[in-house]
Amino acid sequence: MSLLIHVAPGTCALATLIALEEAGADYTARRVDFAAGEQRSPGFLAVNPKGRVPALVIEDGVLTETPALLTYVAQRFPAAGLAPFEDSFAFARMQEFNAYLCSTVHIAHAHRMRGHRWVDDPDAMAAMQRKVPENMAACFDLIETTMLRGPWVLGDRYSLADGYLHTIARWLPADGVDPARFPRVADHGARMAARPAVQRALARESGG
Amino acid sequence: MSLLIHVAPGTCALATLIALEEAGADYTARRVDFAAGEQRSPGFLAVNPKGRVPALVIEDGVLTETPALLTYVAQRFPAAGLAPFEDSFAFARMQEFNAYLCSTVHIAHAHRMRGHRWVDDPDAMAAMQRKVPENMAACFDLIETTMLRGPWVLGDRYSLADGYLHTIARWLPADGVDPARFPRVADHGARMAARPAVQRALARESGG
Repeated sequence: MSLLIHVAPGTCALATLIALEEAGADYTARRVDFAAGEQRSPGFLAVNPKGRVPALVIEDGVLTETPALLTYVAQRFPAAGLAPFEDSFAFARMQEFNAYLCSTVHIAHAHRMRGHRWVDDPDAMAAMQRKVPENMAACFDLIETTMLRGPWVLGDRYSLADGYLHTIARWLPADGVDPARFPRVADHGARMAARPAVQRALARESGG
Repeated sequence: MSLLIHVAPGTCALATLIALEEAGADYTARRVDFAAGEQRSPGFLAVNPKGRVPALVIEDGVLTETPALLTYVAQRFPAAGLAPFEDSFAFARMQEFNAYLCSTVHIAHAHRMRGHRWVDDPDAMAAMQRKVPENMAACFDLIETTMLRGPWVLGDRYSLADGYLHTIARWLPADGVDPARFPRVADHGARMAARPAVQRALARESGG
């Protein structure tokens, strides 16, 4: 069976698309029309009750949450070697990196456009937006100085964490942070942008 | 080597303590004194630059982020069978559950006491606090109706996700949500509370 992934451009779905492309997977990417509010439609909520992308449809059901989709792709396509399952310390480092991206960095970013998740008051939403550049910069300071070993996140070994980092690092300009403040992350981004799998993933972010 | 885990009572560190106890691990739990602000002290920041618990010290370094510590404990103590690594779909479901807890449910909770992470304005912090009961209830509605298969998170198989769910479900009363609204989660909590490993983990939350 060909896999089906529900995506939207500019979202964290890109990380899973990169993993699928690195794995050489056969899949269809279907765009969810966020501008039309399709993510809150009954049809899409029947696919993913969370009303979010990515959602990956496999034989057994629908999987969500980027860190879960990433390790699933790595397990389904073991020849691609996208996760160091055989090295518990390296696997823990990768999991740690992915968990930091989903629970801290993506959340810092979400306070710019998705403040309605946490407050009803427009003034409070504006207060959240004001702090986004500071918070995103603090996250990337930590990644730059402590977490990104180089050349890849885990050091010499490319892994799922690299596509996920690249996905979120692309949000920095819109979040009001100059990417040039983080030269090691910028170098990583240049290496990622040169990978054919990343170029293919970007070409499929809008579906197809 | 005996493992060392930095903890604080009432935090998500309990999830990793439960995993360590289920695994029969030899470890020391060291309490970080949040009331004294020790998590921001130079000494602790040298251990974990994020200034958070849990932090697990192993031979190779310091590991952080609950989803990463959980799968690390499962890999280090394979006889305990805490994670279905051999079943890619079940492993993805567990990862999905843990990612939802760390990136959505824990974050919904954190807007009550840690609002300063995302805003500087006291009025905006109060606006966040007002929405916490609604958001936590929405998260647990989804867990109750869709995610918790029963009797355990993954169905018949106990896993790392159970200790993590139990850890966060214990926060509901303080977050202004009546746990009785979620009878399946409450049943799960009663089964968890009866497990000797959970009782031992709770006894070590404050260090020791």
